[in-house]
Amino acid sequence: MAKQNPSKSSSSTTAKLKPRDKVTLGKIVTLADDVAKKALGGREPKLDIPTRTKSNTIWNKKQGILQMGSATAERELFNLNQAKQFMQTMLHASTIKEFINEGKTSSLRGVFYKAKHTVKGTNENTFDTQDESDPILEDLEVTLGSLREELHIFAENRGTLVGNITLLDKGDEINARKMGSGGWGIPSIVEPDVIEFRKCEAKFVLHVEKGTVWNRFNEDRFWEKHNCILTHGAGQPPRGCRRLLQRLNQELKLPIVCLLDCDPWGHYIYSVIKQGSISLAFESSRLAIPDAKFLGIRAKDYKECDLSEAVKIDLTDNDIKRAKEIAAYPWFEGHRQWQKEIELMLRNGFKMEVEAMITKDISYVTEEYVPQRLKARDWLE
Amino acid sequence: MAKQNPSKSSSSTTAKLKPRDKVTLGKIVTLADDVAKKALGGREPKLDIPTRTKSNTIWNKKQGILQMGSATAERELFNLNQAKQFMQTMLHASTIKEFINEGKTSSLRGVFYKAKHTVKGTNENTFDTQDESDPILEDLEVTLGSLREELHIFAENRGTLVGNITLLDKGDEINARKMGSGGWGIPSIVEPDVIEFRKCEAKFVLHVEKGTVWNRFNEDRFWEKHNCILTHGAGQPPRGCRRLLQRLNQELKLPIVCLLDCDPWGHYIYSVIKQGSISLAFESSRLAIPDAKFLGIRAKDYKECDLSEAVKIDLTDNDIKRAKEIAAYPWFEGHRQWQKEIELMLRNGFKMEVEAMITKDISYVTEEYVPQRLKARDWLE
Repeated sequence: MAKQNPSKSSSSTTAKLKPRDKVTLGKIVTLADDVAKKALGGREPKLDIPTRTKSNTIWNKKQGILQMGSATAERELFNLNQAKQFMQTMLHASTIKEFINEGKTSSLRGVFYKAKHTVKGTNENTFDTQDESDPILEDLEVTLGSLREELHIFAENRGTLVGNITLLDKGDEINARKMGSGGWGIPSIVEPDVIEFRKCEAKFVLHVEKGTVWNRFNEDRFWEKHNCILTHGAGQPPRGCRRLLQRLNQELKLPIVCLLDCDPWGHYIYSVIKQGSISLAFESSRLAIPDAKFLGIRAKDYKECDLSEAVKIDLTDNDIKRAKEIAAYPWFEGHRQWQKEIELMLRNGFKMEVEAMITKDISYVTEEYVPQRLKARDWLE
Repeated sequence: MAKQNPSKSSSSTTAKLKPRDKVTLGKIVTLADDVAKKALGGREPKLDIPTRTKSNTIWNKKQGILQMGSATAERELFNLNQAKQFMQTMLHASTIKEFINEGKTSSLRGVFYKAKHTVKGTNENTFDTQDESDPILEDLEVTLGSLREELHIFAENRGTLVGNITLLDKGDEINARKMGSGGWGIPSIVEPDVIEFRKCEAKFVLHVEKGTVWNRFNEDRFWEKHNCILTHGAGQPPRGCRRLLQRLNQELKLPIVCLLDCDPWGHYIYSVIKQGSISLAFESSRLAIPDAKFLGIRAKDYKECDLSEAVKIDLTDNDIKRAKEIAAYPWFEGHRQWQKEIELMLRNGFKMEVEAMITKDISYVTEEYVPQRLKARDWLE
């Protein structure tokens, strides 16, 4: 293990363990015990690591989510190709145990630095770059069956929220009806022991792609007029944002209505919110929202909303390629409405952004487009 | 002007003008009147646009900020090379007038869409890409002498804040001591008519580079223990964040203490916070904070903090080039301490990130490093 230098203050703040932490710690100790037992018993220490590849990703049609299959790969200590990764896995498990015991969290980069050192008496580094470190952490996630959040690792915070709900965030009451123009920053870790839901009048969540669009809706106080919660994830929403949306959906039964660009990137963001992604398929059950709705922008809107030429952005060759790939996803493949949507976009030959709606009027999107579509329940799911 | 399609609701919400808006509107009307008078008087309509180039950027040593010089360029209607830009400038001025009258704000992209259309009876577009549109808005900023925020244009929100201060954000009271793990999202527009400062016990602001570092300080409740405000700007802080820091510095007399990486990018972020940037030199007086302090990470820290090899990241050729460029900036050039700082980093041959401090202990940076440096007033300015 890397050289330890615990400061007085941090060792004295060893936190009382939360139930969730006890479970995770138990799993890490079991993992370590198993390795130790094998070693002491003269057997070869090894781990079974579930395989995080496209070929081991299963589309669970019934549940409507992507899942990881049952394939695993062995990681052995006495195997020249695997010994280093074995050591790295143990190092990170040890770091996480320490984080949990101290009641603290760190970033992916922090974990990398924590474990990075030169192995004593050699010129060999435990890790050279973070690219080596992140996949080892994902290995641990799937091996332990624990969310990254449960391993006390946070990602960059991204996205904000306002609307008709009160939350508790680490005990602080957040009245999201009174968050001004800035909003509450959605944290990276939003598990129930950090974020609790309190009073909520909102009937749905409107999730938009970008902060600038979120600003438009917040400035027009859309969430107040339409009794909802307004969120954005600054592009592809990070895990914290997705997990929060899922909890709002599952625990408070709020429909999640997405307003994204009419382009392959918007479609992909929707796909990830709804079914999960291949790279995080092992977390779909805690991140995916199978009944999330895609309100717009729709390919039909150019005609239906009588938009001007100004909104058109030509599809690039890459856009066309991506659109076809997305149309071929198993979860879009059997979906007649989505096939039509993507076909029409390709036939149009152009994409359209939410912000292009300003060509009608600055508040057209908040005062006409979204309210009309909501009223007509005109969305894709 | 682009085809208008005012919705009932938005035309009925024409806002009562704030004093700041009246001033801006007056400037736009004067600009337009001047053009109209010239045209009606048979003289050539033209504008004098201050020049936003490096050669027209002046280092004001006394004030410690970068400023725009007095050079201007004429933009004429009856000049084949300038006619289009003249038209574009007028179009954007007209859009902004509309925004102000409606009491609404939009993004750079929104303004672009608003003005983008095919000129009637021609195949000529007013704008083809946003790259054409953004500089025209900057021209208007300098010509009118108005901040972008005063032109009702917002940027992407970025950065968060917690700490010992109460703010009013559009009338909502934000108690930044009770913002949990998420924090208050710093809006893009933080002028006094949107954001007002209320009760503030904090004695300084600690501004860190990244959200993950901010999380570490917030989790350890640094702002509570050390009576401060904690902010980050997700890398190079956007205008909203810089303006808010400046207001906290000027109006509440709070020192701004920056904790950034020991690399040319960290030094550049500091330079922009402190003196402003060439591209926004015309706004330095409203964005720059000449007495901002650079607490760390310092090149001397590798030895002084007894850090391990793990923290070293080799400087690339590009880092070395950038470091030399920064050392040659007029505001670093005469600054002996900064020259030594950059020299030592170059002699070290490596950079160090704030997050690397975890190699000592997870809370070393919050519980030892920063408190010790603050106590010793050991910083660069």
